[in-house]
This record gives sequence, C-alpha cells and structure tokens, in this order.
Amino acid sequence: MDGIPPVALDAMGGDNAPGEVVAGAVRAVRDLGVPVVLVGAPPALTEELDRHGAGSEIPIVRAEETIAMDEGALASLRRPRSSIAIACHLVRRGDACAVVSAGSTAGVVATAKLRLRAQPGVLRPAIAVPLPTRPHPTVLLDAGATADVKPETLVQFAQLGAAYAETALGVPAPRVGLLTIGGEPGKGNKLVKRAHELLDAAPGLDFTGNVEGHDLLNGVVDVIVTDGFTGNVALKTMEGSVRYAFGELRATLDGGRLARLGTLLQRGRLRELRRRLDPEAYGGAALLGLNGTVVIAHGSSRAGSVAAACALAATLARQGTVARVGERVTSSAQKQHRRW
Amino acid sequence: MDGIPPVALDAMGGDNAPGEVVAGAVRAVRDLGVPVVLVGAPPALTEELDRHGAGSEIPIVRAEETIAMDEGALASLRRPRSSIAIACHLVRRGDACAVVSAGSTAGVVATAKLRLRAQPGVLRPAIAVPLPTRPHPTVLLDAGATADVKPETLVQFAQLGAAYAETALGVPAPRVGLLTIGGEPGKGNKLVKRAHELLDAAPGLDFTGNVEGHDLLNGVVDVIVTDGFTGNVALKTMEGSVRYAFGELRATLDGGRLARLGTLLQRGRLRELRRRLDPEAYGGAALLGLNGTVVIAHGSSRAGSVAAACALAATLARQGTVARVGERVTSSAQKQHRRW
Repeated sequence: MDGIPPVALDAMGGDNAPGEVVAGAVRAVRDLGVPVVLVGAPPALTEELDRHGAGSEIPIVRAEETIAMDEGALASLRRPRSSIAIACHLVRRGDACAVVSAGSTAGVVATAKLRLRAQPGVLRPAIAVPLPTRPHPTVLLDAGATADVKPETLVQFAQLGAAYAETALGVPAPRVGLLTIGGEPGKGNKLVKRAHELLDAAPGLDFTGNVEGHDLLNGVVDVIVTDGFTGNVALKTMEGSVRYAFGELRATLDGGRLARLGTLLQRGRLRELRRRLDPEAYGGAALLGLNGTVVIAHGSSRAGSVAAACALAATLARQGTVARVGERVTSSAQKQHRRW
Repeated sequence: MDGIPPVALDAMGGDNAPGEVVAGAVRAVRDLGVPVVLVGAPPALTEELDRHGAGSEIPIVRAEETIAMDEGALASLRRPRSSIAIACHLVRRGDACAVVSAGSTAGVVATAKLRLRAQPGVLRPAIAVPLPTRPHPTVLLDAGATADVKPETLVQFAQLGAAYAETALGVPAPRVGLLTIGGEPGKGNKLVKRAHELLDAAPGLDFTGNVEGHDLLNGVVDVIVTDGFTGNVALKTMEGSVRYAFGELRATLDGGRLARLGTLLQRGRLRELRRRLDPEAYGGAALLGLNGTVVIAHGSSRAGSVAAACALAATLARQGTVARVGERVTSSAQKQHRRW
C-alpha cells in the first residue's frame, strides 16, 4: 500500500489472541495488501506465524507485558511495556502508521491517551462506530472511550463525528443528532438538555436536534452524539437485539415441516444477511481526538475482522483522517474563543 | 372481574387517541371482562363508543383538558383538569382501581407523581418494563420515569424491581443486575460505580453484579437496574433494532424466486414471531413507587395493546402489587436505617 509504514497490530489483545489475531495479520498482508507489524510475545507469535508459513512475511516487535481483557484503565499505567503501549510508541516514532487492537476498550483507550496524547484543544477522545444504515453508515460516538462527560465535551464529539463522517465516509455537510429520550429540546437528563443548547449555538455544525434509541438504525442523521456510557450501552443493546431476533427467527423456522422446507431454500441468503448485521464485520471503530490513528476491533474478533480493522486503520492513516478531524476541533475552538 | 372498581383509562392519551383507545376499552370490557371507565372529552368519546354500539356499556368521566403527546412534565402542573389528572383523582377517591394511559410518558409520570404522591420512603418512581426473555420476562427499570438519579435511587429501583418480579411475575428470589459498560465492578460512569458498592451492601437483594447492553434479552438476570435516561435509550434501541432486523430480513426474503417461495411457506409463523417481539404486545409498563396502580402503554398503542394494558392494570390492582412493592422499599429503608 503505497509505501506507508506498517500497521502496528496488538497481537495480545482480544478474546481470541494471539491465534486469530495472527491469522488476521496474515490475511491483511496477503489478501488485502496491508503491511502489518505484530506487537507481542515472540515465542507464541513465531509459532502462530509458522502455522501459516508466514514467518518471513510479518515482522514482530517484542512486548513483554499484556493488558488482560478484564483489566481496566489503571493497568495501562502499571504496564509501560504492554503490547498496546509498544504499538502506540511505534506510531509516535513514525515506525507505524496506526495502532489496531482488539483488547479491552478501557485498556486501549487509557494507554493510547497516555502514549499518544490528545490533539490540541480536544477535551476527551471518543470512539466512532459506523452503524449499518443506508445509503451510508451513521457514525455513533462516543461508543465507550469517555463515560463521564461535560456538555461541552458532547459538542466536541459532534465536531469530531461530523469531521469523521466527511473525511472517512465522504458525507458532505453531515446532519448531527443528539441521543436522548424524546424529540423536543427539553427532553432528557441535565447533561443532554445543556448540550442541546450548546449544539444549537455551535458554529459550523448542521445540528438537527434530538434523536432517540429507535433512530440508531434508520439513517435519519449522519452522526449521533452521546456520552461513552450511553453509547456503549446502546451499541451493545443493538448487537444483542439483532442476535436475539435472529435466534428467535431460527427457532421459528425450525418449528414445522413447511417451515423447514422454506429454511432450506433460504439458507444462503439468511446467512449472508446475518453476516452483514454482525458487529464483527464492521472491522473496527476509530478512536478520535489523539495524535495518531487508533482502531479498536471488537473483543471477540476473529481473523476476518482483524484483517478488516487493519485495512480500515491503513486507509484512515493514508487519508490523514485523524489529523483532519483534529484540525476541525482546533479551528472550532478558536472560533468559539473569538465569539466569547 | 370480582367486583373491583373499574380501570380509569385516559381516553385522550396516545398517538391514536381517542379512536383506538376507545376500541381498546370495548375489547377490554367485552373480551377480557375488565371493567373500564373512559376519562376524556364526552362528545368525541360518545361518538367513538356509538361506533362500537357500546354507549351503554362503558361510562365516561368528563375531563376538559388534554396533555398533548409532545408536551412535557410542566404541562401537568398547568392542567389540573387533564384527562390523566382526573384519572389519577378517581384512583385516589377509590372510584377506580388503576390508571392506564398511552399519553406522553413525561406528562403521565409528572401528573401521577403530583396526584398520587410517592409511597413512604420512595425517593423517585420508576417504570418497570417486562422484556421478552424466557422462561419469564426480565424486568428493566427505570425505562424513563426519572432521568437524573443518585446512586441511592438505583438501589431503590433494585428493590422496586425485585419486589415487582416476585409479586407480578412470580419469580422467587430474583437476581438483580446493574446495567453498565463492562463486567467488572470498576466499569462504568461515576453513578454506577457508586451504585455498585451500595448494591453490594444492600440487605435482602440477590445482586449478581454488572450486566451489559447485550444481556437485556438473554435472561441472565431477572431484574436490570438503570437510570431512566439509559433505560429509555436502551429500550428504544432494542425496539428499533428488532424492527430493523426484520425489515432487512424481509428485504432479503423478497430478493429471489427461491426465497419468495420460502417466504410464502413461512408467512404465518413469521407474522406470529414478529407480533411476539412487538413492544406494543407487552401491554404496558407499570409505574412503581406511587400510591396507586399506574400502567403506561406505548404511545403508538392500538386497540389490542390498550386492552392488554387495562388487563395488566386490573391484575396488578387485584393482587395489590403496588402496595406490596412499596412495603418492600419501606421495610428496606427501615433496615438500612437501623444499620446506620
């Protein structure tokens, strides 16, 4: 891929690490043409690479420590030599174009904040997840980077999200909605009521007002802004509900002889649909607001999703998306400053 | 139904009022044997009743005012003669056993709080929604009554929800989970981190720890506790996601000739499944913590759901559920008091 440095892939992060992560790296390199460097414990990684006969294709950078899936933000402070910390270090030094990790979200976010630092004027980072709406994805942020926010932070998330939709998804003048519990400006908790007022007054944003939980997948706006707590609950609720609906559907389809016949006919199409709605297929979510490209893959990612996350990271790095997203926030902050 | 006073049905509340609400009242009375009194503007209601030839079967109590679907909590203070206020008044006087409304949630909650008052020791009311899990529903609360809460309020919601699961759903020793964004005690925002500590120490509760968005429909606990903002976002996200999954499914099924044949075979079963997952079919959600039974039906309710909500309200009133739920909170509050 036009001579950019490789993607630094945290080989120790994720429920299926290192096996599926290494398999994902092999796919990214061979099938997608994305250069990758694996960061982790060499013996295990060499063994996995050998399994694919890829020992000479993918370099390994040693990291002695690992942040486990059930560890939180504090672990990142205690482990300066963790695989995710080393991956961030490679990006800072310019030896990698981006970080990809399927590790614990709290651990990845805390480490990346510490090692890459926030872009100038950015209050808090946010995870931007593309939801499978049509004709293009709706960006939901924050999906879990920052659980406690101020109203001003939500305005910044709106700017980060709008810039991401423009730059990464090619949406001109993205419409921004605020996630809350009713259509009118006065509906919601104290946080969103104040954020609504600030968003109304924010320059350079096409703020269209409130959206609700049932608007996540109907494409009514291009960017949905919320705090990391609510966004994470909503995202996981969405995933669980789609899985539940298909589980119930399968139980129904198996129920009778006529139904079984029908199932037989439709098996291929149903499988295809299920894959499209599968959160792992999205590839990953970008962590916005830091000095470097970071893509967080689903904790349960398998090889295919790891490879997709590497491809997303390389594309974002090549387009300079993160830098352009940060510039937007910086220039908005300056404009705000002039107005006050 | 064994001589209880009638259910006071807010005939003016809901997207399809009064037509579908009156039709629901007729169904409740004729098909389900639930006595109902309609509260609203007589000319419109008489006309609707005549349409069903039910003018002599269902009494009307006059209410001059209405709280519109887009009005919030303040409207309830401004309109002491609204249909929902009069319905609450009937319950206070003992002339009705319960209130049912498909009106604006904020309006119904504010009016009911004002007219029926909180039970002794109850800090804030909560809406308890039964989610379609198996073998019995999981109770999610709060689904939108109280958007801003303190950690102590979440402990009370846990007690209200556990008492409701026991009394209304017959679940012995209900397991209670706290909705947040990670499995470990330290995951979440400030509110849930503190609530986790309090729930761990709360007497008489089987608190099993954190649950996440994808646990809403997997039946891992019997009661899911959250604030009214997060709960409402999660509930509407669930509804929207199920609707989306079935919409996508339908598009897939219509896609080819083989698929169309299969669809034909399965039409009856699919329709049945969709109905079961439809939020309107739940009937309604109980508002817990007030001196009186209040059931809030979905704003888009049609006749069937209105009738189901009336039946739920009558059953809760007959069982004395609300009083027993309140007693539990009162006795827990006393126990806590003794411990301090």
